[in-house]
Amino acid sequence: MSIQKPSIPKGTRDFGPAVVARRNYIFGIIRRTFEKFGYAPLETPTLENLSVLTGKYGDEGDQLLFKVLNSGDFLKDVTADDLQNDDGRATRRVLPKLAEKGLRYDLTVPFARYVVMNRGTLVFPFKRYQIQPVWRADRPQRGRYREFYQCDADVVGTDSLLCEAEIVLMMCEVLDTLNKEAKSEDQKLKYTIKINHRDALRGIFFAAAENRSKESDFFVVLDKLDKIGTEGVKQELKERGFSNNGFQWLTYLLRTDDGNRKMTSEERMIYVNAMFKEIMSDPNAEPVGSKGIKQLQEVFNILRGFDFKQFQNLEFDPTLARGLSYYTGCIFEIKINNVNMGSVSGGGRYDNLTGAFGLPGVSGVGFSFGVDRLYDCLEELNLFPEGAAATTRCLIANFDAAAMTAMLPVLRDLRAAGIASELYPEPAKLAKQFKYADGKGIAYVLLQGPEELALNTFKLKDLRTGQEQTLTLPEVVATLG
Amino acid sequence: MSIQKPSIPKGTRDFGPAVVARRNYIFGIIRRTFEKFGYAPLETPTLENLSVLTGKYGDEGDQLLFKVLNSGDFLKDVTADDLQNDDGRATRRVLPKLAEKGLRYDLTVPFARYVVMNRGTLVFPFKRYQIQPVWRADRPQRGRYREFYQCDADVVGTDSLLCEAEIVLMMCEVLDTLNKEAKSEDQKLKYTIKINHRDALRGIFFAAAENRSKESDFFVVLDKLDKIGTEGVKQELKERGFSNNGFQWLTYLLRTDDGNRKMTSEERMIYVNAMFKEIMSDPNAEPVGSKGIKQLQEVFNILRGFDFKQFQNLEFDPTLARGLSYYTGCIFEIKINNVNMGSVSGGGRYDNLTGAFGLPGVSGVGFSFGVDRLYDCLEELNLFPEGAAATTRCLIANFDAAAMTAMLPVLRDLRAAGIASELYPEPAKLAKQFKYADGKGIAYVLLQGPEELALNTFKLKDLRTGQEQTLTLPEVVATLG
Repeated sequence: MSIQKPSIPKGTRDFGPAVVARRNYIFGIIRRTFEKFGYAPLETPTLENLSVLTGKYGDEGDQLLFKVLNSGDFLKDVTADDLQNDDGRATRRVLPKLAEKGLRYDLTVPFARYVVMNRGTLVFPFKRYQIQPVWRADRPQRGRYREFYQCDADVVGTDSLLCEAEIVLMMCEVLDTLNKEAKSEDQKLKYTIKINHRDALRGIFFAAAENRSKESDFFVVLDKLDKIGTEGVKQELKERGFSNNGFQWLTYLLRTDDGNRKMTSEERMIYVNAMFKEIMSDPNAEPVGSKGIKQLQEVFNILRGFDFKQFQNLEFDPTLARGLSYYTGCIFEIKINNVNMGSVSGGGRYDNLTGAFGLPGVSGVGFSFGVDRLYDCLEELNLFPEGAAATTRCLIANFDAAAMTAMLPVLRDLRAAGIASELYPEPAKLAKQFKYADGKGIAYVLLQGPEELALNTFKLKDLRTGQEQTLTLPEVVATLG
Repeated sequence: MSIQKPSIPKGTRDFGPAVVARRNYIFGIIRRTFEKFGYAPLETPTLENLSVLTGKYGDEGDQLLFKVLNSGDFLKDVTADDLQNDDGRATRRVLPKLAEKGLRYDLTVPFARYVVMNRGTLVFPFKRYQIQPVWRADRPQRGRYREFYQCDADVVGTDSLLCEAEIVLMMCEVLDTLNKEAKSEDQKLKYTIKINHRDALRGIFFAAAENRSKESDFFVVLDKLDKIGTEGVKQELKERGFSNNGFQWLTYLLRTDDGNRKMTSEERMIYVNAMFKEIMSDPNAEPVGSKGIKQLQEVFNILRGFDFKQFQNLEFDPTLARGLSYYTGCIFEIKINNVNMGSVSGGGRYDNLTGAFGLPGVSGVGFSFGVDRLYDCLEELNLFPEGAAATTRCLIANFDAAAMTAMLPVLRDLRAAGIASELYPEPAKLAKQFKYADGKGIAYVLLQGPEELALNTFKLKDLRTGQEQTLTLPEVVATLG
């Protein structure tokens, strides 16, 4: 065996004990929230057939799929001719011969595949959550990894807007639960849940753009509103070849205040809807945007039925677009206002999840948390609970072989009481054992020197405060338990 | 997009909600046990560099590694010449040009890589557990998958036999905790933890085989002892070219009774050790097997210090070999006696975990649970707890839009009490809603018809017993909580 300096592939990460514990803390809160709302766990394989994955994420997505080499003689169907023809399509020609499988790219396509494969036995509406890693052969950079987790919850088989309202509730519950650890207001995640409806968005597009073939161009520009303002949006639309015939409507539609103060989300819905009706030349026609506004108002009504208290965190934003084109109804996004970070969660309703697999008409709504970003937010705000990083609570010091034997029943009793404990595995200098406890984030060290042994007591040292107590074993258990 | 009938790669599995919940039940018990014993979680990437993986699992292992195609123009270094030369080595020649990364094959090599990469910051002894999937391009068959989980716990940086004793304790704790769900003795996992030491095994080899170059051949035959008996072993050794000069010792060494009754494990250690000494021509020399026996006896002593009660489950078996050649000290294996299944757990001590990565002298000991096999055992014994399969505890029936609105605060209150609940998302026939609850394994349905509404009460139906109660909301919460 040759000796080598080992490394890990770029864009991947090892998670050491402290980080795993903190990640699991976040996963646990998300999982418990999903389950409390009736979502059940699903896990799909890491390996999917490329026939399932290809063509679902656009051309760029196909490029970013990790493909797995066929096992055995993977070259058996590849010919020299396949390579020689340098028309730039060699990889495309050879790929199907080399690789049949790829790595999961998101959790939505595997979910759709699962629904189609199991449609005979599933009970609809089917509410599932899925917390698993995905892989993308993207260029790694700060905050962008080639292997990262997604946490998705989706319900398919119902159009009920109760689902949309509950997504808002789940988003709040996860963030509010994380905020419970805050020791001051400054430590809290200050969040805004932005909500919109694709039809409201289309209403703006229809009002402002005469050229209806350039929808995605329009939304790309609109997405910059925060950065360049309404006038900047108009200017850039013009540069991209939109005529300014409808531009005056944009000024009205993008208003966020009533002249005196910021409109509430529900005031803005009423206002935007009034604008949509104004824009229509035919006063009897239902503007496209109004359907969206009506559904959004219904979501707000359902939330009021839940006695929802956090409307100040929920913002109707008629310009919210969300990149993915398969959304057809309500769309969501969470922005953390006191940390400089992209959205930590997003989602929306889609009409046709499973069409590509031959099962049309399955509509649903779902959302996803970005755990890496949430982790970074919590770290920046110092919002992780103190205990989240450690596992062992108590280290028993090991003086010599005889003392070690005497401490075995003590160790057993601590563990029997559910206290994660360990005995330093060999006699060693105390300084070394304390260093071990410290390095591992262990809160307590338990010692029994000759004095304590004679009295059948123990010294319990709290490493965070430095305080020492002399206690009996039941008192130790009570203190640590 | 072309329409296709989707499928998953052979050897992989989807885990639906009921199965995930049951698997998580097992993972949870293993995880809590590891943590109680001071093991901290580690997670390594799915993708590893092939330079890290190759050469670590033998030639067969290298074949079974899943390799991931380089992204971008993966053909750029492949020439037509690479293919044309049909000397049977084309794949070996082309592979390094096509693929730099592979999928994790086990958890031990990534652990060793992690230890080497982080040796400057880790505090030793380093105790880590790791519960993650691994991938092998093996021929799929019943019980053998291409993607499956391993649950490993290892401690490196200490020779203390306390670690070996604690492995026995952890094995018992996991199985005893699973057994707590048993409603009768028949449902319990009847298990035997087999323990041996590589030196005791080598003692047998040295006693019985004159040709010391054929160690692995010898162990392959010895491994069949249960099936073919002592005489069968001798016969097959002969067929494989071993001389029968040492064979008479085998008869003694493989004895499990003292003529009247089965020896206890500790009696057998004394007996085997006496045999080893007998075999040695020089009465002053320490036989190779004795060092192993001495360590095993020390492990038993430490267990006695823990007041270990289950020596009847712990069997010294001097013929236990464990396939993996890197073990150098104690070795372990768990056999479930009342289910027809291979070992559900195994492990051992190794001298040189990280040598291949340039860090010699790191010794450690570890073990692993096979969750798929444990799952099958629990299923066969019907030992899963009833609640393990369901997530939602209560479904609120949905009669019509008005009633739906009235039930929103009820739903909120149930969830606020920590009860996983859902409201059927749209008005529907009761039969359909009950079918939904049934299909999802939901225990209770909560209804409020006009009568109950008038009295501000609810009907709570237990779907398992069919019983209905009329209750106030606080009573409902108390019943479900």
